[in-house]
Amino acid sequence: MVPKVVFGQGSFDQLQSILSPERKSKSPFIFLVDDVFIGNNELIDRINLRFNDKLIFVSADEEPKTIQVDQIVKDIKAEFTYRPSGIVGIGGGSILDLSKAVSIMLTNKGSASDYQGWDLVKNKALYHVGVPTISGTGAEVSRTTVLTGPVKKLGINSDFTPFDQVILDPDLTKGVPRNQWFYTGMDCFIHCVESLNGTFLNAFSQSYGEKAYDLCKEIFLDSSLSEEESRAKLMMASWHGGMSIAYSQVGVAHAMSYGLSYVLGTKHGIGNCIVFNHLEEFYKDDVILFKEMVAKHNIDIPQGLCKNLTQQQMDTMIDIALSLVPLWENAIGDNWETVITREKLASMYRKM
Amino acid sequence: MVPKVVFGQGSFDQLQSILSPERKSKSPFIFLVDDVFIGNNELIDRINLRFNDKLIFVSADEEPKTIQVDQIVKDIKAEFTYRPSGIVGIGGGSILDLSKAVSIMLTNKGSASDYQGWDLVKNKALYHVGVPTISGTGAEVSRTTVLTGPVKKLGINSDFTPFDQVILDPDLTKGVPRNQWFYTGMDCFIHCVESLNGTFLNAFSQSYGEKAYDLCKEIFLDSSLSEEESRAKLMMASWHGGMSIAYSQVGVAHAMSYGLSYVLGTKHGIGNCIVFNHLEEFYKDDVILFKEMVAKHNIDIPQGLCKNLTQQQMDTMIDIALSLVPLWENAIGDNWETVITREKLASMYRKM
Repeated sequence: MVPKVVFGQGSFDQLQSILSPERKSKSPFIFLVDDVFIGNNELIDRINLRFNDKLIFVSADEEPKTIQVDQIVKDIKAEFTYRPSGIVGIGGGSILDLSKAVSIMLTNKGSASDYQGWDLVKNKALYHVGVPTISGTGAEVSRTTVLTGPVKKLGINSDFTPFDQVILDPDLTKGVPRNQWFYTGMDCFIHCVESLNGTFLNAFSQSYGEKAYDLCKEIFLDSSLSEEESRAKLMMASWHGGMSIAYSQVGVAHAMSYGLSYVLGTKHGIGNCIVFNHLEEFYKDDVILFKEMVAKHNIDIPQGLCKNLTQQQMDTMIDIALSLVPLWENAIGDNWETVITREKLASMYRKM
Repeated sequence: MVPKVVFGQGSFDQLQSILSPERKSKSPFIFLVDDVFIGNNELIDRINLRFNDKLIFVSADEEPKTIQVDQIVKDIKAEFTYRPSGIVGIGGGSILDLSKAVSIMLTNKGSASDYQGWDLVKNKALYHVGVPTISGTGAEVSRTTVLTGPVKKLGINSDFTPFDQVILDPDLTKGVPRNQWFYTGMDCFIHCVESLNGTFLNAFSQSYGEKAYDLCKEIFLDSSLSEEESRAKLMMASWHGGMSIAYSQVGVAHAMSYGLSYVLGTKHGIGNCIVFNHLEEFYKDDVILFKEMVAKHNIDIPQGLCKNLTQQQMDTMIDIALSLVPLWENAIGDNWETVITREKLASMYRKM
């Protein structure tokens, strides 16, 4: 788990005092910042770079890739003689996942793709801090960093992946576009549904999952919350939802959404929504609830993405989805292969 | 926060594999174990001592004291040439708090009483592991270790206090006597009430506090849970309740219960119940709920403890209670001193 966290409006201003004891002589802090903040001087000025610190803007337009991690690591190594004091990720799930991966790859050899899987990382990662600017992914608390590699979309799951420090400042999520706010919030809701309905569930995950689920219902269906309360609660929902799946597993929506994302580059949050919209068969009541939320907030869920896929694209999508064995085991149970055939997946994808 | 946790029935059997990477040559692990387990070979055999590891049985009959910490530290230093690999606490809140304090005092000079307060600890504590065998105190997750010293009852609150690893095995709480199960469970319930009704509340603490509160209601008022489910859920309630107060504060019940404990040696769990039973003025609905729980489980809450106190005893009790300024600020607000006078406290104590 993340060993240190601060929470609260304005807590982002504690950043430099938090970093200070971790700063090593001649070693910069590297700030990986979502490029939506280019020109946002209010935020950038508050980062307050010191000595040879470096700020790198990173695009989150595409899902994070292992080659992107490798390139950032190569650039940092080329520019600085000394290993950095640490990595600070400021952004959404993509930027946070990239930051975790970069901090791992600065102390481990080879390519990020070598470590996609479970517990393959050898050395402790560089000190790394996460500052989420959108809520829902749970990337701020998870022990994974989901990356698209040359042959698979899979996380680097390890004890060294979680951030050493997280700063939860709900004010940083002001100004997130409405659709993105919804899609990313639904990532959290779907985490909870999949965790709570999974066969891997235990009382630990259940208690976190139930709290995040309740918070999501409050945020997305109850109109009485102020904007400020809603932002703070969604930040906590994301946190608890991430904790819930850290000790259980996700399910059908994530498995199928990974396939979408690998073949079509669909972003994770919207991909989950596109898939979940068609999962009445697996999560009936929660899909009804989801559709209520979609209607209430007048959100557009894309349709017909897979109508014109080539056979090869469809095969790849199915391969990717089927490769996520623990997700299917969690969702369906040991006999999942009798239920989830290639034909079944193809017919489900064609509806999306 | 605690960076590593395992959860689940039987997870206690992972103890040695968890300790193994932390074991240093010639350096023992010291196991501080509640002396209720003397003769309980089923548990003791599972600890599986290796090399020069040492098991010390510790009584939890009295609240933990700074001189007790100092004595254990002195004994360990006298017996072993090398600093231990780590401390493993196996027991209730008292044993867990002692274990945290011993691990701090093995790397910091002086007496434990020098560090009662906030952020006074200089050096990182020795690696320490917590294994709760009763649920409710939140000691397994908190950043404090509450100790009675020569002049005060106050915690060692520091970033170095939390355990490095916690093992949550609900099966270890089998066989806890019914009254103690209730009193300790109510410690959690009262944490939540005080945190949720406090002026220091934020969305972080609120989300944890609400979950623990809901779990307590389910455990103590709903008869449909199995014993096994109830044990697992109470372990999680304790965890979330501890997290809730880590980021907020407790209130009236804890302040007054510290006074009782200091003067009369009343144990923390039962002391909280004795006090809370008379706090309708501050926590009306929750005191009603508490009385329902007491009635449902046919629990005896002692009465008349303070009837025959000497004036000096009463003065000390009031001094201790009044010294806990942050608790009163949280419960009542900045103007607490106009509400909580010595006369007010005396009249409240006399009812208990």
